[in-house]
Amino acid sequence: MRKGADPTIEILAVGSELLTPRFQDTNSFYLTKKLNELGFEVSLKTVVGDDWDDLTRCLRQAAGRSELIITVGGLGPTEDDRTREALAKVLNRDLVLEPAVLQTILARFAKRGMTMPDSNKKQAYIIRGAQILENKNGTAPGLWLKNGRKIWILLPGPPHELKPMFEQSAWPRLLGLRRGFRSTRVLKIAGLTESEMEGLISRLYPRLKPIRVTTLAYPGQLEIDLISALQEKEAGAERSLDRAEKKLLERLGENIFSDRGEDLEEVVGRLLRARGETLAVAESCTGGLLGHRLTNVPGSSDYFLGGLVTYSNQAKTRLLGVPSSLIQKRGAVSAGVAARMAATVKEKVQADYGLAITGIAGPTGGTPEKPIGLVFIALAWKEKTEVSRNMFLGKRELIKYQSSQKALDMLRRHLLRSASKDPNITGAS
Amino acid sequence: MRKGADPTIEILAVGSELLTPRFQDTNSFYLTKKLNELGFEVSLKTVVGDDWDDLTRCLRQAAGRSELIITVGGLGPTEDDRTREALAKVLNRDLVLEPAVLQTILARFAKRGMTMPDSNKKQAYIIRGAQILENKNGTAPGLWLKNGRKIWILLPGPPHELKPMFEQSAWPRLLGLRRGFRSTRVLKIAGLTESEMEGLISRLYPRLKPIRVTTLAYPGQLEIDLISALQEKEAGAERSLDRAEKKLLERLGENIFSDRGEDLEEVVGRLLRARGETLAVAESCTGGLLGHRLTNVPGSSDYFLGGLVTYSNQAKTRLLGVPSSLIQKRGAVSAGVAARMAATVKEKVQADYGLAITGIAGPTGGTPEKPIGLVFIALAWKEKTEVSRNMFLGKRELIKYQSSQKALDMLRRHLLRSASKDPNITGAS
Repeated sequence: MRKGADPTIEILAVGSELLTPRFQDTNSFYLTKKLNELGFEVSLKTVVGDDWDDLTRCLRQAAGRSELIITVGGLGPTEDDRTREALAKVLNRDLVLEPAVLQTILARFAKRGMTMPDSNKKQAYIIRGAQILENKNGTAPGLWLKNGRKIWILLPGPPHELKPMFEQSAWPRLLGLRRGFRSTRVLKIAGLTESEMEGLISRLYPRLKPIRVTTLAYPGQLEIDLISALQEKEAGAERSLDRAEKKLLERLGENIFSDRGEDLEEVVGRLLRARGETLAVAESCTGGLLGHRLTNVPGSSDYFLGGLVTYSNQAKTRLLGVPSSLIQKRGAVSAGVAARMAATVKEKVQADYGLAITGIAGPTGGTPEKPIGLVFIALAWKEKTEVSRNMFLGKRELIKYQSSQKALDMLRRHLLRSASKDPNITGAS
Repeated sequence: MRKGADPTIEILAVGSELLTPRFQDTNSFYLTKKLNELGFEVSLKTVVGDDWDDLTRCLRQAAGRSELIITVGGLGPTEDDRTREALAKVLNRDLVLEPAVLQTILARFAKRGMTMPDSNKKQAYIIRGAQILENKNGTAPGLWLKNGRKIWILLPGPPHELKPMFEQSAWPRLLGLRRGFRSTRVLKIAGLTESEMEGLISRLYPRLKPIRVTTLAYPGQLEIDLISALQEKEAGAERSLDRAEKKLLERLGENIFSDRGEDLEEVVGRLLRARGETLAVAESCTGGLLGHRLTNVPGSSDYFLGGLVTYSNQAKTRLLGVPSSLIQKRGAVSAGVAARMAATVKEKVQADYGLAITGIAGPTGGTPEKPIGLVFIALAWKEKTEVSRNMFLGKRELIKYQSSQKALDMLRRHLLRSASKDPNITGAS
């Protein structure tokens, strides 16, 4: 593999547990992300079990087709861990005992007052000619091996061992082979459907080239992924993304709520904190999800005071004082009840804003007039209350999630509108 | 591939988006699960991009090593979708226009008042000799192809197209090749650490053979996965798991909360419903997570009434009536405040049980006496209140999750203990 070349790269995850329906190979996502940052693309990913024939065949085929091969797993002390042995066989090299590695492993056990089991000794054998990648979080050292023009990197499977090892030992070596800089950016959007967004920006796509644009639709949220072309300098890659973002911002405006990876609850929190204002919530069908999301943000106690979960009508009456007559007349799922919930919780907790959700999450409880997915969301501030009527699709948990998303977005838009005179407080960026 | 044989099986996912850090190949998990049910094991999984050379090489290597090969993706109408073309090339077969498939695609567009774009016509070409797997949810038909003793199954990438197609068209054909029956079961455990559980059951492992036992540790939850040996009849596979479960139950007792895949909130819900009792919650550091989890269960309005989110001290005083003096004297995170929260919410909502959580989720707010992770959980019933003091490790969201898990488990154990005279109400099974 030569500096600046466009190499064929593959990742080979080793372990029979990765061939069951229970375990995901998440390491390859991390490694792909890091390789992309260096301007490299991954051509192939393989998962193979512990079977000797399968493993050696995979390694042989990888050696035949790729220039940089990263193996993950199979470096442990058990009989099933045979990546080292298999690669030594495929490359026709010896395994040699490395006394320094053995000392490190012995010391690791001694530190915990334990004797090293015999089985761990095999971890001190390395493929002749390989460089050792130190493992600060486990007994299995990694290996960096040049074989002709090809590079092999052998990493351990546990992510908490793999990641620090990769960053401390493999990354500096890979930097020397860097092809250039590729930057990525994610714009997050709320309040539009996928087709509404496409209508606004699809004619823009040709003008964004050579930036690669991918759109992703999640319940209650859209994302636009931007990937720059390969640039000589990082600043150049970033500038090309700035230009693309500006064009998208012209079309999408305040529908974009973040260009730096934030969730909606973080953006809302940032806006509230900047204004020194506080929030209380009243939740029916979401059952606490809105409060849960708000309090996932560190420091949310600065602006989130608390709230009420009035799941049953009994709780709506007892905790919020919504009159039984109002519930009977309009139904618990109604604009009137939502507005009452928002205004009352704001008052009770003495917050600046009250945000309330009442709806039908299903799978039962729907009627022709009030079907599953009907959700009223109310925002109360000072003397005013705003209510939105929504129809969400999907299963129970999806309806709950979309309800919380819409509630947060109502508050975000309100905060943006009423803060528009202050140029320091904006939603995106 | 012959009936009853032990074939080499591989899954090949096609699509450049699967080689980015954003998209997971989740289809292979579904397919592995279905294949395991037939007694088959998957030997290899590969992810390859849309590049013609990479794709044809992958297909050629798969043809050389495996007997059943399932490809996923690359059947769409765009230029990048070339799985059909690549396999035809590798197997040296023609692509032939199938008029019936073309009619189906045309009709699909016509039904939506649209004209079929020219690009979709290529989806009506099939590899000569292949059988068509109908796609009821999209335009790309799947293919089933015998080539010598090898079987190829070509499936579309979108899960909502792949799954119904696999079940309706591929599954009946695979049933004819079934090797036997393998059953699986998952036991879920709360209230033990991983090493405590190992101490209780590790000596049991040899006696469970030939059942395969895997233990998994999650925050606040452990799981024991049991996989039976291959049996001629399904009942035999199930019976062998029954015997293994009985042995584990003898050691682990009520620490096992489910053997049928339920979450803790479902088990608690089932126990409450059986007793006709109701629950209210008061949450501080969890911010609504406990209520959210309880209301993720359909029908939870039968027993969950609602609650209070008293995140700030202001809310604790205003909503719960916890005296400021108590908070000042003992601190908001204390056994006394937790007990008061549980008892008060039970009273206010008039529920049978009150469950309360107050703690320090971090990353700030910890002190030497009250460090991050310190959480008090209280359960109030009739005239009594029980409080537990916990130290949870991990980041903010993990501390929140473990707190909600412990709260649910406290209630579960209380319900089991006080119901132990009624043999119809138990936790597991």
